[in-house]
Amino acid sequence: MINPRTISILGSTGSIVTQTLDVIDRLDGKFDIAYLTVDKNIEELERQTQRFSPGGVVVCNSEAYSEFKKHTRFKGEILYGNEGLHQAAAYEGNDLVMSALVGFAGVVPTIRAIEAGKTIALANKEALVSAGSIITKAATSHNVDLIAVDSEHNAILQCLAGERINDVEKIVLTASGGSFRDTPLDEFEAITVGQALNHPNWAMGNKITIDSATMMNKGFEVIEAHWLFGLPAGQIEVLIHRQSIIHSMVHFTDGSVKAQLGMPDMRIPISYALTYPAREQYNFPRLDLSQIGTLEFHRPDYQRYPCLKLALEALEAGGTATAILNAANEVAVGAFLNGLISFTEIHKIISSVIEKKEITLNPSLEDIIDADSESRDIAHLLINKIKN
Amino acid sequence: MINPRTISILGSTGSIVTQTLDVIDRLDGKFDIAYLTVDKNIEELERQTQRFSPGGVVVCNSEAYSEFKKHTRFKGEILYGNEGLHQAAAYEGNDLVMSALVGFAGVVPTIRAIEAGKTIALANKEALVSAGSIITKAATSHNVDLIAVDSEHNAILQCLAGERINDVEKIVLTASGGSFRDTPLDEFEAITVGQALNHPNWAMGNKITIDSATMMNKGFEVIEAHWLFGLPAGQIEVLIHRQSIIHSMVHFTDGSVKAQLGMPDMRIPISYALTYPAREQYNFPRLDLSQIGTLEFHRPDYQRYPCLKLALEALEAGGTATAILNAANEVAVGAFLNGLISFTEIHKIISSVIEKKEITLNPSLEDIIDADSESRDIAHLLINKIKN
Repeated sequence: MINPRTISILGSTGSIVTQTLDVIDRLDGKFDIAYLTVDKNIEELERQTQRFSPGGVVVCNSEAYSEFKKHTRFKGEILYGNEGLHQAAAYEGNDLVMSALVGFAGVVPTIRAIEAGKTIALANKEALVSAGSIITKAATSHNVDLIAVDSEHNAILQCLAGERINDVEKIVLTASGGSFRDTPLDEFEAITVGQALNHPNWAMGNKITIDSATMMNKGFEVIEAHWLFGLPAGQIEVLIHRQSIIHSMVHFTDGSVKAQLGMPDMRIPISYALTYPAREQYNFPRLDLSQIGTLEFHRPDYQRYPCLKLALEALEAGGTATAILNAANEVAVGAFLNGLISFTEIHKIISSVIEKKEITLNPSLEDIIDADSESRDIAHLLINKIKN
Repeated sequence: MINPRTISILGSTGSIVTQTLDVIDRLDGKFDIAYLTVDKNIEELERQTQRFSPGGVVVCNSEAYSEFKKHTRFKGEILYGNEGLHQAAAYEGNDLVMSALVGFAGVVPTIRAIEAGKTIALANKEALVSAGSIITKAATSHNVDLIAVDSEHNAILQCLAGERINDVEKIVLTASGGSFRDTPLDEFEAITVGQALNHPNWAMGNKITIDSATMMNKGFEVIEAHWLFGLPAGQIEVLIHRQSIIHSMVHFTDGSVKAQLGMPDMRIPISYALTYPAREQYNFPRLDLSQIGTLEFHRPDYQRYPCLKLALEALEAGGTATAILNAANEVAVGAFLNGLISFTEIHKIISSVIEKKEITLNPSLEDIIDADSESRDIAHLLINKIKN
C-alpha cells in the first residue's frame, strides 16, 4: 500500500474543484486533503468538509469567515483571508497544490506554493497570463513542476510524454469557437448575457464561458502555453475545432503530429494532472469516433474574435502587457455580466486600456501587481464613461 | 560527430525501400548501408549501388544474379539467393536490419537477423502474420527491438512513447477503406485489376494495394498489432477514416486517447523507425488541418470487407490459422492480379483454404512453413478448378 499523497486545493467551490474532488473520491484513499479554501460559499465548504475531512479550511471573505466559524460542524483548523490562503499554499505537508483560484487573485498564492517547493497543478490561467515570467522563474529556481490542468495544455503535456521539447516544431491549441461561432457578425451588438453563457461543449464558470465566447480564453491559453512549454508565440497556433474532441496537438520537426483526444470531460485532464506522469483507471465517458462521425477544423477569424488578436499582440509586446490585458479583460467581462456594457464593448475596453497603459519590460512581481491594479482602474473609468 | 549506424535493407526495390533510401539520403552520413538485396530488379540495384555505395548486395534470382555479376560496375561483395539473404540479415556489422521483403519470404531472414541480435525495422507484415509467435519469442529471447514501419503501428509506437502498456485500454487502427469504400456492393463482382490498383490515399506496391481494397491488409495489421504490442484481439479495433490523416490511436484506461497524425507520406514513419526513439528534422509535407477541413470516421462493414472478418477469426483461432490465411491470400491476390479469378473470389478462395486446412496450435517454424506451403497448394488447386 502506497502512502496517500497530500493535496491542498486553492479555490475550492469552482467547477474545476468540484470535479477535482470527484476524481479524488474515485482515487479512494490515494489523496489526503490538507486544505480546502473558499471565498464565501460556506454552504458548499460545509458539505465538502463533511465529505472529504480536510485538515483545515480557509475562508477569504470576512463575513463568511465569521459565519462559518459560528455554525460549522467542522473540527479542523479554520484560517482567514489572504494570509490563510498563503499558509495553505505553503503548508509543509503538501505534496501537491491545486491552484484553481479565479483571476489575478491566484498569482501570489501560487508563488507561495512554488517557493515552498510544492508541485503545482495549475488551473488558474490568469496567474500565468499576468505573471508568467515570475511564476516560471520561481518554478525553475525551486525545481518545481507546473502541471497544466486546462484540457488544452494537459493535452500538450500528454503529447510530450516521451518526447524532447527540441523536436517540437509548433503546438496547436484547438478552440471550440465558443457560443457565437456561427452568429452573424451584425448580430454581435445585441448579444445578451444569457446567450453568452450558453457554451456549446463545456460546462464551466461564468467568466471563462464569456472568455470562451470572445476567444480571449484561447488567447490566454496561447500565453500560458508560451510559459509552460517555453515556446515563442510564433510556434503556438490556434485552430477552431467545433467538436472539442481533439484537445490539442504537437507538431514535430519530422512532420509527425501527436494529438490528445477525449470526450469533453474535465475530469480526464484533472486526473492526469493529479497523478502525472502516471495514469489511473476511471470509468469516465469513453470516446467513440464512429459515433461522433466527423471532426472539423478551420482557422480563427480575428473579425469575429478581436480579443484573440489582442492577446497575441500582448504576448508579442511582452513585459506587463499580458497583465494589463488580463486585468482589463476581468473588469470588462465583469461589467458585461453585470449588464453595464455590451458584448462588443468588451474588446474595445481592453484595447483602450492597453493603449493608455505603459508597458514595463522585465517586470518585478510588484510591477505586475501595479499594472494589474492600475489597468483595472482605467477599465472602470472607461466603463463609467460608457454608462454615462 | 556520432559514428554512423550500419543498416542492411532486405528487399531493396519496393516502394518502402525506395523511401527508406530517400530518408537515409536526407540523414546525410548518419547511416552506412551494409547490404542491399533484390529479387531480380538489377537495373534498380545498379542505380542504388552507384548512389549509396553499400558494402555488398544480394540478388535472389539466379538469372538476374549471373546478369548482374557480368555487367555491374559495383565493386563490393555480390551474394546469391536465400543463403546470401540470410548472410546479409545476420551480418555482424549491422546495427539495424530493415526487413522489407514482401510476403512469407520475409520470415526466415527476419528470424536470422533477430538471432544475430540486430534491431529490426519491420516493414514485412506477413512475417508477423504468419510467424508472429516465433518472431516475437525470438525477439524476446535475444532482447531485440521490433520497430514497426507500417504507418499504423508506427503511429501506435509514437503514441506509446512515455506511456505504460498496462495503461492501454485498446488500440484503434485506422483504415482508409481502400479503393472500393464507396462502390455499391452489387458492382463488386465486376471489379477490374485496374480499378483495384487505384488506391485513394497511399501510393504502394500492387499486392498491398489489393490487400487494402479487400481490407485483408487491415486484418493483417490487427494480427501484427497483437504480436507487436502484446494485446489480445478484443483490445484492437479497426475504424474507417477515409482521409488517412489520423494514422492510429491508443485509448488509455483513464478515458484519454492519443493519436498520431500526418500527411500520408511513408517517409515519416520510416524515419521514426530508423532513429527511434529519437526524431530528426525533415522537410516532409506538413499537416494543415485547416486545409483538410474534415476528418470522418465510421465502423467497417464485414459485408463489404469479408477478408477483414476472416483475419479477425484467424487471429482468434490462433496457431497456424494466420499463416494459412496469409498463404491463401498471397495466392488468391496473385491470381486476381493475373486475371485468373475475380475480385470477389479472393475471399472465397481464402475462406475455402481455411476450411480445408487443419490448424496446428503452438506451431514450430517448420509447422508454419508447412502450413504456408500446403495452403498455397490448396489455393492453387481451388483456383485451377475455377478456371476450368
